[in-house]
Amino acid sequence: MNIVDQKFIEKLAISNSAKIVLVVLDGLGGLTSEKTGKTELETANTKNMDELAKISQCGFSYPIAPGITPGSGPAHLALFGYDPIKYEIGRGILGAVGIGFEIKQSDIASRANFCTVDEQEIITDRRAGRISTEKCKELCQLLESNIKVKNFEIFVRPEKEHRASVIFRKENAGGNLSDSDPQKEGLQSKEIKALDSNSEITAIAVNEFLAQAKNILKEFKPSNMMLLRGFSKYPDLPQMQDVYKVKSAAIATYPMYKGLAKLVGMEILQTGDTIRDEIKTLKENLSNFEFFYFHIKKTDSSGEDGNFDAKVAVLEDFDRCLPDILNLNPDVLVLTGDHSTPSRLKAHSWHPVPILLSSKYVISDGVSRWTERECYKGGLGHLNALNIMPLALAHSLKLKKYGA
Amino acid sequence: MNIVDQKFIEKLAISNSAKIVLVVLDGLGGLTSEKTGKTELETANTKNMDELAKISQCGFSYPIAPGITPGSGPAHLALFGYDPIKYEIGRGILGAVGIGFEIKQSDIASRANFCTVDEQEIITDRRAGRISTEKCKELCQLLESNIKVKNFEIFVRPEKEHRASVIFRKENAGGNLSDSDPQKEGLQSKEIKALDSNSEITAIAVNEFLAQAKNILKEFKPSNMMLLRGFSKYPDLPQMQDVYKVKSAAIATYPMYKGLAKLVGMEILQTGDTIRDEIKTLKENLSNFEFFYFHIKKTDSSGEDGNFDAKVAVLEDFDRCLPDILNLNPDVLVLTGDHSTPSRLKAHSWHPVPILLSSKYVISDGVSRWTERECYKGGLGHLNALNIMPLALAHSLKLKKYGA
Repeated sequence: MNIVDQKFIEKLAISNSAKIVLVVLDGLGGLTSEKTGKTELETANTKNMDELAKISQCGFSYPIAPGITPGSGPAHLALFGYDPIKYEIGRGILGAVGIGFEIKQSDIASRANFCTVDEQEIITDRRAGRISTEKCKELCQLLESNIKVKNFEIFVRPEKEHRASVIFRKENAGGNLSDSDPQKEGLQSKEIKALDSNSEITAIAVNEFLAQAKNILKEFKPSNMMLLRGFSKYPDLPQMQDVYKVKSAAIATYPMYKGLAKLVGMEILQTGDTIRDEIKTLKENLSNFEFFYFHIKKTDSSGEDGNFDAKVAVLEDFDRCLPDILNLNPDVLVLTGDHSTPSRLKAHSWHPVPILLSSKYVISDGVSRWTERECYKGGLGHLNALNIMPLALAHSLKLKKYGA
Repeated sequence: MNIVDQKFIEKLAISNSAKIVLVVLDGLGGLTSEKTGKTELETANTKNMDELAKISQCGFSYPIAPGITPGSGPAHLALFGYDPIKYEIGRGILGAVGIGFEIKQSDIASRANFCTVDEQEIITDRRAGRISTEKCKELCQLLESNIKVKNFEIFVRPEKEHRASVIFRKENAGGNLSDSDPQKEGLQSKEIKALDSNSEITAIAVNEFLAQAKNILKEFKPSNMMLLRGFSKYPDLPQMQDVYKVKSAAIATYPMYKGLAKLVGMEILQTGDTIRDEIKTLKENLSNFEFFYFHIKKTDSSGEDGNFDAKVAVLEDFDRCLPDILNLNPDVLVLTGDHSTPSRLKAHSWHPVPILLSSKYVISDGVSRWTERECYKGGLGHLNALNIMPLALAHSLKLKKYGA
């Protein structure tokens, strides 16, 4: 499908009060169960989504291109209309922004994992048995207050469970660094290397930080080491209000998704842990924004755990909540995922993602259930994820005509 | 959909005598009526198109990309295989070429509206109550013969109703100018400004022209002023005979479409006002050309008027004429539109446009009526308009193999 540049959309975008709600069921797309021959969506009892599909337009979205499995960062950028190949965002920045850390332009952020190592410093668990978030906070405080590295200010901030962000601050320091995390168990962590000459001082500082951290953490098994990866700086992304002329808000429960939304200029709304909490937040804030990014995480986590039934249950839970969203009468409602996470693969996959577009300007397409197999018949055909934002804007009459 | 560059097509194109007829039902695509739930195509009794659909291949074409609403200029360029984002054509040039004005390379053309202003020079009707074409001719002659501006030769030529073209001629004059037309009623017209230093002399001349025009027109209420917009020069477009190796002809009743066709190198055939007149022209000229652009305007005008029934009637009228086209046995017949103009929206829209491709080299796809909903099942899927010309050439065996 043809894709136009975001600059092209920017010239056509106009402001109006119509509301767009983009529901992202993370890792939505699935594969058939080997037992039943049905996918997660086909197995789930989702009568509200199915009824909506009958009066909407359905189809598929490729997050990047056929065959490409995306991470959550690029997949979300594409949904927001940002070319995920042009804009690469480091994992470190995503995490730091996601936890609400006030990052400065020259800061270098990294994603940190507490992990378990044995006596030979071989990594035996990259996630330190998924320690509690409480424990993570405690260890982060300990590291931040005890580690001193010359010329650098260092922040160690907890995310969830074993995850943390470590931010290195020094004016004009380079941030082009290799990872210490080997991304595999059974290996030792790697020495951080500078990938350009401007980053050599930073590499020395980061290795010094890790040495001190190892020393402090050694008595805290299973979280007796720290791994760093994804060193990155704040990217200069066009902001949604400038490009699309919408005030936009994010309703998401996990830090990384909040981080992504913040990078493109969305306001991050405080919300609770459940889909019902998120809908309450949507309702309360409906009049203040024109665009809502509404994120549901658990479809992906259950897919990654290989838990077919749990993924089905999340879909059914969302389905029960759907009428509450429909009752808010958004002008445009898009249901889709950022990528597929089939339970059978226990991982993100390359499969195109079902999409449903509801607006008063669609011609329904005869799709009778919102499933992968029914979406094959959908009137939207196979889109690229970058087409979704222009379509949502068009259906809310927020794009002017191009040319005379 | 993947798109190849026109230069790529040019290298593959070969000449043969096969005939291609591209029928453009302007503003073809529609939306459902709120009363009946059916679109214009679904409502129309179009048994000939439906029979043809059963032995053809159907699908959709996006004029630019999903979500983008095109004007007629870019939408037609795309149908002719010219990238509408690369080639932007000014409204002034379109009008001037459309009325058959012999434009020179350094001419600066503008689109003119006769309009009505009140005593405070506030525009009360941008279209001067749609004065008759006769009146427009008379006023244009009056202006052209009476206005003198130093160093410039000026042509004032009528289009239809309140529309005219004003062409400013001076060797090497710049034509990068702002509009005087504020595109809104309740405002005064704006002073023309040069948008680069090379256009300053032209700006002075145009403002002088407008001052004299105002003085001459003041006694001709409701057409007591003139507005100018879309200043532009002749674009240097590749010509169809060079790119596609076809002799091409345009059968169209409205100036702008003739203008567009002329820009890409088509010969403009004289024809009458009705679809039957246009078919007669096609028949008479069939042996002299290999490619025919056959334009039907009234589907769009009735859509823009919000007249659902009138749009249905035009579709039915064309359907009755279709056998006369089929009797001419074109090797390739494409039915499509340049863009959608749903009566419900009273405007061009972003919706993809139904397309039907008839040739002896298609596999029929089970589409039983030529409607939006049936086209969802079509074997062509969702194309970009830029794919249509290569497909038509391929089906008439006018494209060589690429590579060994």
